[in-house]
Amino acid sequence: MEKTNVAIVGLGTVGTGVARLLLDHGDRTARHAGRTMWLKRAVVRDLAKPRDVDLPAGVVTESLDDVINDPEITVVAQLIGGLEPARTIMLQLMAAGKDIVTANKALLAEHGPELFTKARELGRSIAFEASVAGGIPIIANISQCLSANQILSMEGILNGTSNFIVTQMDEKGASYDDVVRKAQELGYAEADPTMDVDGTDAAQKLAILAHLAFGATVDWSQIPRTGIDRLDPTDLQYARELGYRIKLLAVAHLADDGLELSVAPTLVRIGTPIAEVRDAFNAIRVIGDAVGPVFYHGLGAGQMPTASAVVADLIDTAVGRTKLTFQTLEYFSIDQPPRVLLRDANTLMARYYFRLHVANHPGTLAAIAAVLERHNISIASVIQHENGGGSPHLDPVPLVIMTHSTTEGASRAATEEIASLPSVTGGVVALRVKD
Amino acid sequence: MEKTNVAIVGLGTVGTGVARLLLDHGDRTARHAGRTMWLKRAVVRDLAKPRDVDLPAGVVTESLDDVINDPEITVVAQLIGGLEPARTIMLQLMAAGKDIVTANKALLAEHGPELFTKARELGRSIAFEASVAGGIPIIANISQCLSANQILSMEGILNGTSNFIVTQMDEKGASYDDVVRKAQELGYAEADPTMDVDGTDAAQKLAILAHLAFGATVDWSQIPRTGIDRLDPTDLQYARELGYRIKLLAVAHLADDGLELSVAPTLVRIGTPIAEVRDAFNAIRVIGDAVGPVFYHGLGAGQMPTASAVVADLIDTAVGRTKLTFQTLEYFSIDQPPRVLLRDANTLMARYYFRLHVANHPGTLAAIAAVLERHNISIASVIQHENGGGSPHLDPVPLVIMTHSTTEGASRAATEEIASLPSVTGGVVALRVKD
Repeated sequence: MEKTNVAIVGLGTVGTGVARLLLDHGDRTARHAGRTMWLKRAVVRDLAKPRDVDLPAGVVTESLDDVINDPEITVVAQLIGGLEPARTIMLQLMAAGKDIVTANKALLAEHGPELFTKARELGRSIAFEASVAGGIPIIANISQCLSANQILSMEGILNGTSNFIVTQMDEKGASYDDVVRKAQELGYAEADPTMDVDGTDAAQKLAILAHLAFGATVDWSQIPRTGIDRLDPTDLQYARELGYRIKLLAVAHLADDGLELSVAPTLVRIGTPIAEVRDAFNAIRVIGDAVGPVFYHGLGAGQMPTASAVVADLIDTAVGRTKLTFQTLEYFSIDQPPRVLLRDANTLMARYYFRLHVANHPGTLAAIAAVLERHNISIASVIQHENGGGSPHLDPVPLVIMTHSTTEGASRAATEEIASLPSVTGGVVALRVKD
Repeated sequence: MEKTNVAIVGLGTVGTGVARLLLDHGDRTARHAGRTMWLKRAVVRDLAKPRDVDLPAGVVTESLDDVINDPEITVVAQLIGGLEPARTIMLQLMAAGKDIVTANKALLAEHGPELFTKARELGRSIAFEASVAGGIPIIANISQCLSANQILSMEGILNGTSNFIVTQMDEKGASYDDVVRKAQELGYAEADPTMDVDGTDAAQKLAILAHLAFGATVDWSQIPRTGIDRLDPTDLQYARELGYRIKLLAVAHLADDGLELSVAPTLVRIGTPIAEVRDAFNAIRVIGDAVGPVFYHGLGAGQMPTASAVVADLIDTAVGRTKLTFQTLEYFSIDQPPRVLLRDANTLMARYYFRLHVANHPGTLAAIAAVLERHNISIASVIQHENGGGSPHLDPVPLVIMTHSTTEGASRAATEEIASLPSVTGGVVALRVKD
């Protein structure tokens, strides 16, 4: 049986999972690959560090040169996070003739065009299934399985940490800070979870998917994004009262005048599949013009789901499928003009949920309604509960308004104006609604 | 740009959809394939028949020889249903050097080993994504995307016609016969829907999936199967009262002592994703030992979803990916011993739902409970409503029993014995329950 020599660079959580799959399940991997996938080297920073996998003698090394200078090693799982030295190492490995498998979405979102152009120049390939939605093979599904379609839209929950936090806040009524602490204890959240909870991670993944599905060349930092880090449990309660849950939704919609991309906490109707995605799961709903809607649901991260995606890519690369796809699709080419442009965020249509605190006296609602009318926003429903205790005419009461469809620009202008009304205290919470 | 010449054999519903995608969307198909996919010929039985697609002059022909004798045509979408002449035509096309794309699951389930062995001998490939679950790319997902895993189980709704009928019966309270008629009017059911409603179609699809996921060589007719053709609306109502819906569930579970395969109407808990699959949709939940659970949901049939799968296969075949997969995985090899054996159906564990009619007098429930106890089946819950009108001691009343987990053998023996009790009239309905 043929043998492909593989190396892993970076033996963290995912790297350890990849090593385990290759070492513990060599027979079935060989059966699925039609060849032996042989782990020849694993490059680590510190040989002395204890590990959760038994590596045969001579496999672990601190020297990247042991991989670079070994012509027998043809495929490398490059599993170092962050931008540097990950970028430099990837360039070195490709220059040495290695095909790359990576899970590093930040690196691709930031340096994709440079790395992919270099790969093509060198006749190498980069596989990156593990970079988006770990256990859901969305890269292969969009690039290959749905290749007969024009993708019309993608909506998804792409950040498992945020979804875990929101689910726990919603179901347990816990505070944001308490849930973040719990997520860190469980290993769902990093010590510094900023990139997960502020929408950065989801925006980077969305930028990659938008490139594959629409040929869009998107700087992820240009995607309008709001995280869940300022989500108030009150809004989860009102949403439920209205028949919705709040999810950090990444959205890509193709319209005649361009592509809409956004990441934002969004009200999604209870009972729809996307609303029922709980804890650290991810889900993506893709609509293609031929296939119609296809819904995917699976674990978004974690050691073995991500390792599963990496090993599938290692097999695809060893077999030769990756190279064919890579040559065909011209991913992240610097030379190619973008096929679609981003729409002006102000023109995007959506329904909105507004929550604000108002003085409880006559004329308040009329003043707010007048602002909305001036911006051509029509009201679908209002919730104002009776003030439990307190002085009815002094304490501000919460007011929730659901609008009919309007533009983001109108919503933003109206909420700014409403926030400046004398009868309104504090700001206005504005969340999009997805029906 | 390179060009691949393609032919379609059989211009029925799916063939017409494939022709439309190739003709109307040539640019994007070329972009996704890295080459022009050129529809050179479409073979039909009757040139005079009116069609829903405008074919350029010279494309349509009644002669298969126009494809067989044209060496420029390298890939053929063979879209004739049934076993013959589909089998002979496929063999002829492969002998003439064509790679095949097909949607014919009956042909693969019946003659897969012969056709695939022949293809390998001739250096040809057969792609068959469209044969199972139209819009869900489950073949590629199991064969490639999840290749790092040992698949542990698959549970799915694989027959859209049955699911449409059951959904309509459940939601509208309509009778089986009325819904079948409606399904035929809507084009969801054939004039003779037997293969769909009696479980044959789902069993053939399950046999194909079981081969891919477990290396099982299964004669589909050996899969224990019950259809929805004898489903009583009463059971849908009782199921709902108990918190369940009834779905025609295809199941494959890998256990230490072999593989469990079955197709049967099954109670699935309301609120679980599989229970919420409505109308003509399909869904499959796959569990892999590394990736965990992955859930897929999409249209199970229909012109464009199926055409989407066929065109994706045409692209994969033209690009060369199909051949690599085909060489690697040794699908349906006559020479290979099966990797797993089917479990004896009598040893399969499940909870059961029993419904029967009993004489409404003392001792009846005790007699039934005694039979169950003798077969070691313990009762989880019982529903016996008050007899509305009628004579309380003469008219038989319906009795529903939910059991705890037991074997299929015990369930079968017990229900036979219960049916023969003097206080029980008619047979016993026994349905599996999936929690």
